[in-house]
Amino acid sequence: MSKLMPPAHPFDDDKLHEECGIFGVVGVTDAANFVALGLHALQHRGQEAGGIVSHDAEQGFNSARRFGYVRDNFTSQSLMKTLPGPLAIGHVRYSTAGSKGPTQIRDVQPFFGEFSMGGAAIAHNGNITNADALRRELIERGSIFQSSSDSECIIHLMARSLQRNIPERMEDALRRVEGAFSVVAMTRTKLIGVRDPLGVRPLVLGKIGDGWCLSSETCALDIIGAEFVREIDPGEMVVITADGVESVRPFRPRKPRFCIFEHVYFSRPDSILGGRSVYETRRQIGVELAREAPVDADLVCPVPDSGTPAAIGFSQESGIPYAMGIIRNQYMGRTFIEPTEQIRNMGVRLKLNVNRALIKGKRVILVDDSVVRGTTSRKIKEMILDAGAAEVHFRIASPPTAWPCFYGVDTPQREKLLAATMSEDEMRDHLQVDSLRFISLDGLYRAVGEDKGRNPSQPQYCDACFSGEYPVEPSDMIEKGFRLKAAE
Amino acid sequence: MSKLMPPAHPFDDDKLHEECGIFGVVGVTDAANFVALGLHALQHRGQEAGGIVSHDAEQGFNSARRFGYVRDNFTSQSLMKTLPGPLAIGHVRYSTAGSKGPTQIRDVQPFFGEFSMGGAAIAHNGNITNADALRRELIERGSIFQSSSDSECIIHLMARSLQRNIPERMEDALRRVEGAFSVVAMTRTKLIGVRDPLGVRPLVLGKIGDGWCLSSETCALDIIGAEFVREIDPGEMVVITADGVESVRPFRPRKPRFCIFEHVYFSRPDSILGGRSVYETRRQIGVELAREAPVDADLVCPVPDSGTPAAIGFSQESGIPYAMGIIRNQYMGRTFIEPTEQIRNMGVRLKLNVNRALIKGKRVILVDDSVVRGTTSRKIKEMILDAGAAEVHFRIASPPTAWPCFYGVDTPQREKLLAATMSEDEMRDHLQVDSLRFISLDGLYRAVGEDKGRNPSQPQYCDACFSGEYPVEPSDMIEKGFRLKAAE
Amino acid sequence: MSKLMPPAHPFDDDKLHEECGIFGVVGVTDAANFVALGLHALQHRGQEAGGIVSHDAEQGFNSARRFGYVRDNFTSQSLMKTLPGPLAIGHVRYSTAGSKGPTQIRDVQPFFGEFSMGGAAIAHNGNITNADALRRELIERGSIFQSSSDSECIIHLMARSLQRNIPERMEDALRRVEGAFSVVAMTRTKLIGVRDPLGVRPLVLGKIGDGWCLSSETCALDIIGAEFVREIDPGEMVVITADGVESVRPFRPRKPRFCIFEHVYFSRPDSILGGRSVYETRRQIGVELAREAPVDADLVCPVPDSGTPAAIGFSQESGIPYAMGIIRNQYMGRTFIEPTEQIRNMGVRLKLNVNRALIKGKRVILVDDSVVRGTTSRKIKEMILDAGAAEVHFRIASPPTAWPCFYGVDTPQREKLLAATMSEDEMRDHLQVDSLRFISLDGLYRAVGEDKGRNPSQPQYCDACFSGEYPVEPSDMIEKGFRLKAAE
Amino acid sequence: MSKLMPPAHPFDDDKLHEECGIFGVVGVTDAANFVALGLHALQHRGQEAGGIVSHDAEQGFNSARRFGYVRDNFTSQSLMKTLPGPLAIGHVRYSTAGSKGPTQIRDVQPFFGEFSMGGAAIAHNGNITNADALRRELIERGSIFQSSSDSECIIHLMARSLQRNIPERMEDALRRVEGAFSVVAMTRTKLIGVRDPLGVRPLVLGKIGDGWCLSSETCALDIIGAEFVREIDPGEMVVITADGVESVRPFRPRKPRFCIFEHVYFSRPDSILGGRSVYETRRQIGVELAREAPVDADLVCPVPDSGTPAAIGFSQESGIPYAMGIIRNQYMGRTFIEPTEQIRNMGVRLKLNVNRALIKGKRVILVDDSVVRGTTSRKIKEMILDAGAAEVHFRIASPPTAWPCFYGVDTPQREKLLAATMSEDEMRDHLQVDSLRFISLDGLYRAVGEDKGRNPSQPQYCDACFSGEYPVEPSDMIEKGFRLKAAE
Repeated sequence: MSKLMPPAHPFDDDKLHEECGIFGVVGVTDAANFVALGLHALQHRGQEAGGIVSHDAEQGFNSARRFGYVRDNFTSQSLMKTLPGPLAIGHVRYSTAGSKGPTQIRDVQPFFGEFSMGGAAIAHNGNITNADALRRELIERGSIFQSSSDSECIIHLMARSLQRNIPERMEDALRRVEGAFSVVAMTRTKLIGVRDPLGVRPLVLGKIGDGWCLSSETCALDIIGAEFVREIDPGEMVVITADGVESVRPFRPRKPRFCIFEHVYFSRPDSILGGRSVYETRRQIGVELAREAPVDADLVCPVPDSGTPAAIGFSQESGIPYAMGIIRNQYMGRTFIEPTEQIRNMGVRLKLNVNRALIKGKRVILVDDSVVRGTTSRKIKEMILDAGAAEVHFRIASPPTAWPCFYGVDTPQREKLLAATMSEDEMRDHLQVDSLRFISLDGLYRAVGEDKGRNPSQPQYCDACFSGEYPVEPSDMIEKGFRLKAAE
Repeated sequence: MSKLMPPAHPFDDDKLHEECGIFGVVGVTDAANFVALGLHALQHRGQEAGGIVSHDAEQGFNSARRFGYVRDNFTSQSLMKTLPGPLAIGHVRYSTAGSKGPTQIRDVQPFFGEFSMGGAAIAHNGNITNADALRRELIERGSIFQSSSDSECIIHLMARSLQRNIPERMEDALRRVEGAFSVVAMTRTKLIGVRDPLGVRPLVLGKIGDGWCLSSETCALDIIGAEFVREIDPGEMVVITADGVESVRPFRPRKPRFCIFEHVYFSRPDSILGGRSVYETRRQIGVELAREAPVDADLVCPVPDSGTPAAIGFSQESGIPYAMGIIRNQYMGRTFIEPTEQIRNMGVRLKLNVNRALIKGKRVILVDDSVVRGTTSRKIKEMILDAGAAEVHFRIASPPTAWPCFYGVDTPQREKLLAATMSEDEMRDHLQVDSLRFISLDGLYRAVGEDKGRNPSQPQYCDACFSGEYPVEPSDMIEKGFRLKAAE
Repeated sequence: MSKLMPPAHPFDDDKLHEECGIFGVVGVTDAANFVALGLHALQHRGQEAGGIVSHDAEQGFNSARRFGYVRDNFTSQSLMKTLPGPLAIGHVRYSTAGSKGPTQIRDVQPFFGEFSMGGAAIAHNGNITNADALRRELIERGSIFQSSSDSECIIHLMARSLQRNIPERMEDALRRVEGAFSVVAMTRTKLIGVRDPLGVRPLVLGKIGDGWCLSSETCALDIIGAEFVREIDPGEMVVITADGVESVRPFRPRKPRFCIFEHVYFSRPDSILGGRSVYETRRQIGVELAREAPVDADLVCPVPDSGTPAAIGFSQESGIPYAMGIIRNQYMGRTFIEPTEQIRNMGVRLKLNVNRALIKGKRVILVDDSVVRGTTSRKIKEMILDAGAAEVHFRIASPPTAWPCFYGVDTPQREKLLAATMSEDEMRDHLQVDSLRFISLDGLYRAVGEDKGRNPSQPQYCDACFSGEYPVEPSDMIEKGFRLKAAE
Repeated sequence: MSKLMPPAHPFDDDKLHEECGIFGVVGVTDAANFVALGLHALQHRGQEAGGIVSHDAEQGFNSARRFGYVRDNFTSQSLMKTLPGPLAIGHVRYSTAGSKGPTQIRDVQPFFGEFSMGGAAIAHNGNITNADALRRELIERGSIFQSSSDSECIIHLMARSLQRNIPERMEDALRRVEGAFSVVAMTRTKLIGVRDPLGVRPLVLGKIGDGWCLSSETCALDIIGAEFVREIDPGEMVVITADGVESVRPFRPRKPRFCIFEHVYFSRPDSILGGRSVYETRRQIGVELAREAPVDADLVCPVPDSGTPAAIGFSQESGIPYAMGIIRNQYMGRTFIEPTEQIRNMGVRLKLNVNRALIKGKRVILVDDSVVRGTTSRKIKEMILDAGAAEVHFRIASPPTAWPCFYGVDTPQREKLLAATMSEDEMRDHLQVDSLRFISLDGLYRAVGEDKGRNPSQPQYCDACFSGEYPVEPSDMIEKGFRLKAAE
């Protein structure tokens, strides 16, 4: 249907992107304000659009969905006073470039449904790998979809459940769903959180005063002053009311497979994942990388901002001075509406500038978190050489990204991934740098605390983007022609 | 859910209001442009919001829904180029003040649904009298409603039909529906029009080049240069493609009961209803009124603009000069956002001003189309007397409005209708005018061409708002406590 | 400088347009609200933009200027509360199509200047015929103009006056100015009104409670409930404070020459000009026209809405029935932003529709107020013939418009005026109508109450647009090459 | 006059702020696009609003002024195509909180004036210390000011000059002006740059293809790919055309006094000032600080982002590991419109979060660039202690800020400056930290390359904010009661 806000990406930032952040709170005055703050802290998980649903005993359910940053929308009195009540959930969303066309406001979560026992709203982080099949089945049986989102299946499955209360309808629905899902949902009185059996996406529980909150990451607990209680377990569902937290296990138990890329890039460095500081893990990746791939040079420079902790670790392990060789423009956003040709051609120069006086004549190690298509890496290399660097050495804080993610991350098609078609040496030649080294998969596992590295027979994490080993079969994609590694 | 545009009504204009106008066209280039023009011509049937859905072979279905006038939204290139294709339908909507709260954009038609055999959009003029019951049943069975509109039931009933094509699913759906409905709908290739068995609301067929169009009124055919072919019959469904117009009769035949108030006020004076010029009918009402209720006076003045044709007729029959005693501000719209207190108190003076020099010392006959609550009539009388009129005589071009309409017209609750609680003489005293006379029901029937007046055993029109005789039982309302005339 | 809102005129409405309406009030609470209402009543004098300046003892001067209708801007609480205080003036403005490019917000009045003795704001209706020369002189001496408006000269002349108070500075300034001007101005404590020595444009004084107001027309007094006191005399300046109205005569006395076209078209029919009802004058024009140019026909139809009073007069004098043969769409505004090609081609059909059933087979007299370029007249004639009229006779309520106005009216260049190049008979043939007759200049003077018609040696009105006799030499235009009648 | 955009500062970021950045270019196609990019790179010098004026041979001068970031306004095709031509200048502006009320669009530069020899536009960085006196004199002589900006004096002085060309008029004007000014101006054919005799604010010259550009800082040359040619000298004026750069010296020569705070905080780290890398200077400040004020601790953490280079230097000199103890939210902007109470109370937590897992139990050195009122320092200290830090030591990369700046920097009134009323030890106690040390004034001079430190008899820089020694007498402020150091 109608296209509301065609975003332009003037430069390819060449990262994998988490598609969503979710947050919910119950038992506080003006819960929506807390949700807005939580979503602001989770903005790195989705910058395109956001939504909040709240419930108030008198005014019932209210909702607002907006394109743009949380801080530009959900901070104004006039909007926030339309979202009263002690219970609210929210969602921030990243647009999946290319594949499905521009996002429309009707694709922005939370989704809401009116059931015979009352309304419910849900916010979903992850991706349903059998969504196409479910959608076809539901339409055939008379459901009318309002969005192109895979997440909408959940609410239709709930509408058709024969259970007599909403948490049980949600259990029914989620048992039909395959893939990765962390869900925050609400009824008129309950805040609900669920993680899929593998626990691919994060979800944490916090306590704020007499109330409770659920969040994708701990950094969003900090901003509202909530205390971190614990992670929701893989396969666990919590139903939270004023009386406390009830926990159920609706799914068949499985070995967890948390997404290792959350440690590498998606999560914020001040969050705590699996009991580990994300910042410290990333610094440790830099340490491992300096051990695995040392090089003689004058400066260690991060590609800002995501390469910074690993660059610090690399500098500390190697003894080569750390320096800000590339400066980031703080006033840069992601997208432009209808940009001029010149803006479109500027690319990464709109966002990054080389610290010319520092770089000139130096042998520079650039530490970046990942290489996806290699487009940005190439431009950065050119900027560094233009500024007179003597040598450029890339050190990458993740293994080669050779496979797409189907669990809630926006990845290019496989053939666009540089590592899908080239070896490390070929990539070095392609990027025309003096050296290029990725951390090994075992090195990455060591950095996240697995001292013996990766267990090949039963990997401790989901690392499908590096290994091609998918813990949940991507059935919709296979139907569309995607070939698994084994099948190649 | 969230409230998007709370309209303020600074003055009670004290009219009954048609709730919708509908228009569709197939077989022309850029059909949506024609729909926009048609809706502009039908704007008097709904000023609050409008929507258009189009279909293009390459780009599929597109839609745009906006608050405000057609001319302020659906005239810009940038919007209209998002609505390509040779097939489009549209809808303008009036807000039903008070009862259901402010309209939200999701309540704006056309409604769209994706079925297993493809998408369909519908636009509905009228009101479904068993909508509450249908909605309860559909939700119980798993449908998720997106709007508060009664019309959304139709699309959910269609989604659940077992028929294999969309026109047959629409037949299925409409056979479950009670009340008044003229519907314009579209699939990827077909334009569909239906009128309920009583034919309460109008719907006409037009020919434009090799294409066809459907419209609430003929005045919208004129604006696009289409030729008026015929009215859609009560109980008829037409399915129009490039190959022509196919007609079916899905309902059990009944005696038609077209809304007589369309002649009095709703339709535009340049439209043709049932083969009669609306303007001429209204002029004839004035003639009948001059015969039934003559009075000695100096001037016959219309209450602009709707009283004008009847005032002309009254003047011609009585020989009393016609004059513009009240001048209407042409720059007046209907609603204000967040108006100042002073604007709120201005009332009708924002819109009408007395032609003081003309009125002073004169005996004035004011011809208005109807009296609903009497609030505006009273203010107009005060303005006229303030300007120095010697006498004020009201002549009303419709019988006393004593009953609410449940077939797609916004009417106050019965107790708010002046004629529900007062006789003609009591109303005269209440309004403090020198005389007040309504046309008789038989006089009105004569003016629309029924020379013998109304047939009490089988009335030729729906005149429930005057007579309290409802041709379709308003079952939702009865459940909510409304008492029919017989039951009083 | 930057172009803010390029308006598109989808159809040439082929009228002369008054360029401004002005209003001011002192001595009431929240004066700006009254000004907003007054400007709403004067909207017909300028629809493109409006502005209000108010003064409050605590908050000083505040101002707001907006494109669009008064009712869409100056009705909201949030805007109006930024305009506090007991003293305010305002202005509505028509854009002068073509000649000077699109209006910018900085061209919207009132204009404001900070002088050493305090601030002042002025609003001007009319046109300064020596503005170009004044502007050149002022710039040469160091003034910096902010707008392209001729009216800005007044405020710069005031800034350079050596007088010690603002009213005297205004006298100084206006003595340098040639042309037509009605001005409403304000200081921190005074409301000031001035009319040029000829009194070309109207200005009236009203009383509201303990306060006073100034307005272009009396209809704006009615809307706020003010009492009409008197017209400001040609050449008079009034300085109004809480203590009352002081009157001075700063100019050399001259014989008044009020604009006769204000009676024909510009002013609202419910206003009183020179002690005469505008409506009654227009009706009388119709009477004169029926006497001067009778014709045998079936119907007298106005071209809505401006032809209506003359059509009523024509019908009454001729005995031929009055009828609404052309229906006006009430939801039509003047301009579109970036309209589609189709909208652009629609022309007058967007606004007017023929009442086909009424017109068919009839001999129709169409009464219009004026013919400027003849473009709309031609399209209306075609619509009437398409609807099956047997004959079309045009009767025009003003003499042929053969000369441009330089006193505050937007007129096409002389060569675009139909009457500048054709005789009445040639115009009839050009428009292809059965007959075409204009009222004579003497007939028009009789209709405004000059029983002996026009005094050729000392005309009682400014009728330059008909006669080519300009009471003030248009010196800027002559410098640009305009040739006066005598010089031809 | 009317208030257009009241910005709310939800947290006091407690920094001094540069008030402006300026940029101009001549001799390139679509110069305004280059100006937009340049202003984007200078956004840190003014985030509230921006403006661009361009000149095109056919379309003359065009301008656009907008609130908000450059990237949100001056990137769209639709706006930029209204700014054609090979010559353009632009300005970004910071709002001076409190003192003068909210900025209005008419205060946004460049300012434009139409002179008898053609138009000119100017953009000014700095502050005119005798602006009040000049304004009074100009108004007395008939000038009408449009803004509250001190910079508007320049254009009025130019309008009154008797010189026959614009560059000479600008010389005339600037010789009347006292204070700090770097100016970029344009006529129809010339790009002009001027720096005041002391050279307080920066201005550099660049070459781009056959064209030239002027910029506040070199980082804006980098973004458009221009080559850095040289700094404009203090007291120099350059007049640039297609034919090249002409240099004149309109002022009496003086010893330069460049603003030393540009090195500390205002300029971007990737700019080059006086031949020195800003980043390297800041790192060196950290080195000096580590020597002057060593402390035993576990971690050196910057207060992001401005403390980062000095923290790196401190870590390198002290050997204490560098770490990101505080994480900055990248999606934080400066201001909110009408924020909720909760947002207002959040303060710095909206922007910064402590890396709790890292900080816990550690002795932390926090390196910040300055302490102004101390409000933010106190909140950061609390966040760090809440996270469990064992000790908190502040090290500040500038001397105590004890005096306001009157040369184009937004500073609080003197009594609000913490260092104006407290010694270093008192500040430490006030902030309740374990230690607090500022770099010495001599240490700062050493870091900028003056090996012998500050020359007290003839300081090499303007350091009035630290020393209270003002190189230009702030005459307007003295008239308002400001007391110089000597007078205390």
